[in-house]
Amino acid sequence: MTRIVYLNGSYVPETEATVSIFDRGFVMGDAVYEVTTVLGGRLIDFDGHMTRLKRSLGELRMAMPLAEAEILAAHRRLVEENGITDGMIYLQISRGNAGDRDFVFPPADTPATVVMYGWDKPGLADNPAAREGLRIITMPDLRWARRDIKTVQLLYPSLAKMEAKAQGKDDAWFVEEGTVTEGTSNNAYIVAGGRIITRPTSHDILHGITRASLLRYAREAQITIEERPFTVDEAQQADEAFITSASQFVMPVVEIDGVPVGAGRPGPVTQRLREIYLEESRKAAI
Amino acid sequence: MTRIVYLNGSYVPETEATVSIFDRGFVMGDAVYEVTTVLGGRLIDFDGHMTRLKRSLGELRMAMPLAEAEILAAHRRLVEENGITDGMIYLQISRGNAGDRDFVFPPADTPATVVMYGWDKPGLADNPAAREGLRIITMPDLRWARRDIKTVQLLYPSLAKMEAKAQGKDDAWFVEEGTVTEGTSNNAYIVAGGRIITRPTSHDILHGITRASLLRYAREAQITIEERPFTVDEAQQADEAFITSASQFVMPVVEIDGVPVGAGRPGPVTQRLREIYLEESRKAAI
Repeated sequence: MTRIVYLNGSYVPETEATVSIFDRGFVMGDAVYEVTTVLGGRLIDFDGHMTRLKRSLGELRMAMPLAEAEILAAHRRLVEENGITDGMIYLQISRGNAGDRDFVFPPADTPATVVMYGWDKPGLADNPAAREGLRIITMPDLRWARRDIKTVQLLYPSLAKMEAKAQGKDDAWFVEEGTVTEGTSNNAYIVAGGRIITRPTSHDILHGITRASLLRYAREAQITIEERPFTVDEAQQADEAFITSASQFVMPVVEIDGVPVGAGRPGPVTQRLREIYLEESRKAAI
Repeated sequence: MTRIVYLNGSYVPETEATVSIFDRGFVMGDAVYEVTTVLGGRLIDFDGHMTRLKRSLGELRMAMPLAEAEILAAHRRLVEENGITDGMIYLQISRGNAGDRDFVFPPADTPATVVMYGWDKPGLADNPAAREGLRIITMPDLRWARRDIKTVQLLYPSLAKMEAKAQGKDDAWFVEEGTVTEGTSNNAYIVAGGRIITRPTSHDILHGITRASLLRYAREAQITIEERPFTVDEAQQADEAFITSASQFVMPVVEIDGVPVGAGRPGPVTQRLREIYLEESRKAAI
């Protein structure tokens, strides 16, 4: 089935959705994005994604090209038209077609390029990986220093996923100056003595929407959270480890660089957090 | 006049040249590029650009999608069809249209996207800036750590050029751990005691094609070259400073963070190097 995608105000078949070769997103990585989860046909954490989108755009001095309500309507139409029950809606906004290649920004009235599309992921919340847990490797964090801005400059995370795959593993965590920053497309956590330990937000990591919601739910469930960087060594010796992301929710990590974490299988705190997150998110979905 | 551009084997009007919204170059910054200078209708350092292109592709495990001779023929046709006497030809190769968004590479037989286009820059070699010199600012180097791979992940250099402009200056040099790495889209040099000082190539900087040629010409002219990192302080106290890039050749820097370099005007070594570079490059042009 050919998907219907959103492109600059129109709904078109995916095969016809194109952007100029001069688009700043293609020529210069000058674009930001968000990925929102769909469960049971409803959007998870949509407001959080919009808040972060506005922040990313603001950091790059781009204006919101559409009202939040218009983006919501487009997300809902894509869910509807493409029959998505469980899946994702991707949104990308670039600084638009500058008409040529130039490091200098195009005039401020250059229309942004706005792209949205979705994909179906049946059984997304029942991913078998949540029962198995992920085996991850660690790699030096070679990304640019503003990981809090959600840009499409994703080549290094892509290379890292490929490296993990080449080693027969599931994913990678990045390490900088001795501590874990985050995963390729997710935030990283360990559990020790019943406490959740995770790096505080800064320019070093993405301000995960799932992260923010999970920490709120965890606090409500009286679980202690320690926001500080942790080392790979500490993670390997932790009771449990996990990641969060919009598409993976809370996902156990059972092995780091070949060393089993805890009992080498998903731990009880992680499992409980996953349940809480899914339950609360479904309740709050719109 | 509407330019004719090259897109995946076809020559099309620039207004019709588009790529899929799923192209890895648009979605993930997964593309490399080269920019070759045209002087008097001939290509400067074309072989050097091809050698670096193959290196960039190799580092990202992409194959050369065209033979070097085909790329040369396309460059010449773009020069011809667009009546470019002095100007640039831009080449971008992305990992192509994966048909969806995924961090994992698409199958190896996915065709790369190949784009080439040129622009006319009359009087390119007689840029008045070469007589005035550039005033630059310094900024922390926040780019990813593999600057030797010439990818389109150029958002930070773009932001740096905008910052320089906002401060009424011409460009920016990046600083990391106390020393200058390079400029936004050029390599950085100082001249002290008649010697040229410039950072050695590594993953930290782009392996400039103009840099390599210039250092060769300089050695032939018996000028001593010291390849080592230098500080901003050292640069401000140097006799001269300059940059090199394909489009700027050798361009004097006369001010760094508000401090005049040397006499605050283009110095004799820089001017001589610019003359040598232009003369030798024109001779070797194809």
